[in-house]
Amino acid sequence: MKETVIIEKAEVKLKNPILIEGLPGLGTVGKIVTRHLKRQMKAEKLADLYSPHFAYYVLVNRDGDVRLLRNEFYYWKNEEGEYDFILLTGDTQAQTIEGQYEVANKILEYAERKGVKLIITVGGFRTDVKDEPKVIAVSTNPKILRRAIEAGAVNGPSGNPIVGIAGLLLGLARLKGNIDALCLLGETRGYMPDHKAAKSVLKVIAKMLNIEVNLSELDREIEKSEMILKRMQKIEEQRAIAMHKIRKKDEERVTYIS
Amino acid sequence: MKETVIIEKAEVKLKNPILIEGLPGLGTVGKIVTRHLKRQMKAEKLADLYSPHFAYYVLVNRDGDVRLLRNEFYYWKNEEGEYDFILLTGDTQAQTIEGQYEVANKILEYAERKGVKLIITVGGFRTDVKDEPKVIAVSTNPKILRRAIEAGAVNGPSGNPIVGIAGLLLGLARLKGNIDALCLLGETRGYMPDHKAAKSVLKVIAKMLNIEVNLSELDREIEKSEMILKRMQKIEEQRAIAMHKIRKKDEERVTYIS
Amino acid sequence: MKETVIIEKAEVKLKNPILIEGLPGLGTVGKIVTRHLKRQMKAEKLADLYSPHFAYYVLVNRDGDVRLLRNEFYYWKNEEGEYDFILLTGDTQAQTIEGQYEVANKILEYAERKGVKLIITVGGFRTDVKDEPKVIAVSTNPKILRRAIEAGAVNGPSGNPIVGIAGLLLGLARLKGNIDALCLLGETRGYMPDHKAAKSVLKVIAKMLNIEVNLSELDREIEKSEMILKRMQKIEEQRAIAMHKIRKKDEERVTYIS
Amino acid sequence: MKETVIIEKAEVKLKNPILIEGLPGLGTVGKIVTRHLKRQMKAEKLADLYSPHFAYYVLVNRDGDVRLLRNEFYYWKNEEGEYDFILLTGDTQAQTIEGQYEVANKILEYAERKGVKLIITVGGFRTDVKDEPKVIAVSTNPKILRRAIEAGAVNGPSGNPIVGIAGLLLGLARLKGNIDALCLLGETRGYMPDHKAAKSVLKVIAKMLNIEVNLSELDREIEKSEMILKRMQKIEEQRAIAMHKIRKKDEERVTYIS
Repeated sequence: MKETVIIEKAEVKLKNPILIEGLPGLGTVGKIVTRHLKRQMKAEKLADLYSPHFAYYVLVNRDGDVRLLRNEFYYWKNEEGEYDFILLTGDTQAQTIEGQYEVANKILEYAERKGVKLIITVGGFRTDVKDEPKVIAVSTNPKILRRAIEAGAVNGPSGNPIVGIAGLLLGLARLKGNIDALCLLGETRGYMPDHKAAKSVLKVIAKMLNIEVNLSELDREIEKSEMILKRMQKIEEQRAIAMHKIRKKDEERVTYIS
Repeated sequence: MKETVIIEKAEVKLKNPILIEGLPGLGTVGKIVTRHLKRQMKAEKLADLYSPHFAYYVLVNRDGDVRLLRNEFYYWKNEEGEYDFILLTGDTQAQTIEGQYEVANKILEYAERKGVKLIITVGGFRTDVKDEPKVIAVSTNPKILRRAIEAGAVNGPSGNPIVGIAGLLLGLARLKGNIDALCLLGETRGYMPDHKAAKSVLKVIAKMLNIEVNLSELDREIEKSEMILKRMQKIEEQRAIAMHKIRKKDEERVTYIS
Repeated sequence: MKETVIIEKAEVKLKNPILIEGLPGLGTVGKIVTRHLKRQMKAEKLADLYSPHFAYYVLVNRDGDVRLLRNEFYYWKNEEGEYDFILLTGDTQAQTIEGQYEVANKILEYAERKGVKLIITVGGFRTDVKDEPKVIAVSTNPKILRRAIEAGAVNGPSGNPIVGIAGLLLGLARLKGNIDALCLLGETRGYMPDHKAAKSVLKVIAKMLNIEVNLSELDREIEKSEMILKRMQKIEEQRAIAMHKIRKKDEERVTYIS
Repeated sequence: MKETVIIEKAEVKLKNPILIEGLPGLGTVGKIVTRHLKRQMKAEKLADLYSPHFAYYVLVNRDGDVRLLRNEFYYWKNEEGEYDFILLTGDTQAQTIEGQYEVANKILEYAERKGVKLIITVGGFRTDVKDEPKVIAVSTNPKILRRAIEAGAVNGPSGNPIVGIAGLLLGLARLKGNIDALCLLGETRGYMPDHKAAKSVLKVIAKMLNIEVNLSELDREIEKSEMILKRMQKIEEQRAIAMHKIRKKDEERVTYIS
């Protein structure tokens, strides 16, 4: 393996497939979205991507088996709809600059070969989220951007960078000019897996592509996360109070001495 | 995109073109210079350069559109003069050692193909500028160096390195030996975009190449920067005074104790 | 040397060879195991591997001679048994991500050429070892995993990464699918060469492959290490007691002041 | 320039040339030695080496001219002796692992082409030098090692690494097997250009190769360095005394408070 390779696992003919990418990144938003769609849609393995630009370790699974880090393509035949789906998820992104460009190129080439006309990349957008996380949309095609906004997404601040594969796929697709691409970024604080942000993105995708996605599983995860968060905040507050007391005592002592 | 590519956007025949390079760098001097020339001359897009050695993110613009980091070539047909112009500006420089050499090589090859006989690179020279920032000139050709000095530039200290594309273009041009190159470095403190340094460089360029450049727009930017600077200095002074008081109080206390 | 090369030093025909890899890594477990086997089996040099991805220094030996960093293959003809052995040991692992993949690929290609059907990689597993270090087994083939467990190894926690060559050889072998691979990780604290962990691994290998390995030499090393460890612990305890006294004194003084 | 290139500047036929390498490194020992030989022997330019693995900046010289970082080969026809000389000096060494191997390979290939049968690399050996710095010798050929020791060098401690080009040239020469190589390391503290260490190495080279080298110029530099060193030591002592007084005063105060 001298360069990134994609090994196909199933020979299927897909109908105007839409590729949805969600790899590890800020708040794990992208990966949660694609993992959820995969389970919901009972998507099946299409291909594996391996790269010498991934970190040099292997993962052990429950049976004592082992495998290289990889990205995975799953497909889902949407019998009633106009288009089938390809989901791209996985363990990691490339670890070097040149590797990021190489992997993104290989994914685009493969998408082209499979007849993909639209790529949707999913990620997180770091901000101090208050209530419902918004979904920022960016696209290489104004019409698709409009459709995303009609489905609940919003325009993001300009000048902002989109880092990693979620960004590069758009940039390279635009350069090549034969595949449209849309990026959906769920607002997130980013410091733990953010199922709430993922839910917001999934709502936009479901509405925009006219598919049904059951979100109740995500709700359970959101509840869990919020409980953890509350506990962490309580600990943080107590620490702050303790620190305040110590500091006051210090000041008193200093005043006494001087 | 396995390596740096230049994609031509306009097919134009240029008359003895001079290439002026100004990419992001110290004090943003180079980029301010080429951006200003582009606006003033109403220069038009000639080509885009993309590289897998640029950082792996994309930029979002106002319309929710997105693009890869790039360098841009603009051209300007100088009907009355002896030579036309190519301006090279952009978002970034290559992020790795080997990438810097590769991008510089591609630019040189393209310049050769377009018949360029002189390359002028622009950058900043870090120093504690007092009044008017001077312009340091360095060249692969003593005659061109003399012309720059006659136009107001000065000789710089020897042994000094010129880092990045502004330097490599000269070094590689000298090695190849078929294109002359001149580097103009505006003196700058380097910690914010320095329109004053850019203005000094533009004056030298205008005089040397016998072109007219309106600098009033830059003057507005210089005023703005100076106001910001004054405000920052005031804050800095107040902080210093406060620190001084605290330290004095500390010393009094120490004296008292010991 | 533009890429990793393997230079064969002996032309031998090996009978169903098993390749045992042990290169420098956590607790030096792998290297101790292969070095011990090499001495015990009086294995002979088969080939050297050099790579431009190894650190850029050379090593000086006793005679004032010098050599590049390398990995070494040794072979051992096991006349009575069903299979011969190849041992892979050496000075270092590749220093870059891409280098790790390249070296692992070259080793696999060479193993294939020599007719290897099973690769055993050896490493350390960081944990707070209490009594006897356990040996964690992971394999690309459930049957071989079972044999390792019957020989005394245990199943490891899933989700765990195996870093470096010991992991990549399994991952790449599984991808190619024509060579079985087993990884044996001896539990170790990892902060010094751990002969005890190596001994545990050697016991599993000896039982599993039905070969005799004299371990008395290792016992001497284990004794030495334990003496060093006890001395270090005593020093650590004394330091802790001293620190405790100082802190108590500090607290008394603070109480007095405030 | 996609890879390291050597551009020949003079077409000369050399008689059994010996290549002496001294590039920037510990204590600048190697570079001082080759620069001194170049001046003494009035050696002339033979070739330049450029590499995309050198740092990405250019150097400005006194005339406002500019050039890429490079390594330089000089030759010296030793009419009376049995062999001519090639000196290798320059601005820098490669900045990446792979670059170090590539540059060393190119130098070896060039040496082969020029008929070189012996390479001598020069560097520094970090130690706490007391009186006269010793010269450590290491060689790919025991006969040459003996000659170096007869000329005043000593055997070094085994297991020691020789980092960078001075080491890699030996390691790669030994691997190829057609050029002998010797490394001479002058003992140095390493924190400033060490003319004393360079002088020791030059003495060994002169005696071993039976050439005359005037060392008086170096003596002046050694005197200068020693004066600087003494001044630095005095400053250091005064600082230590001042610190001691402050600490004592602190202790008195603490005793008083508690």
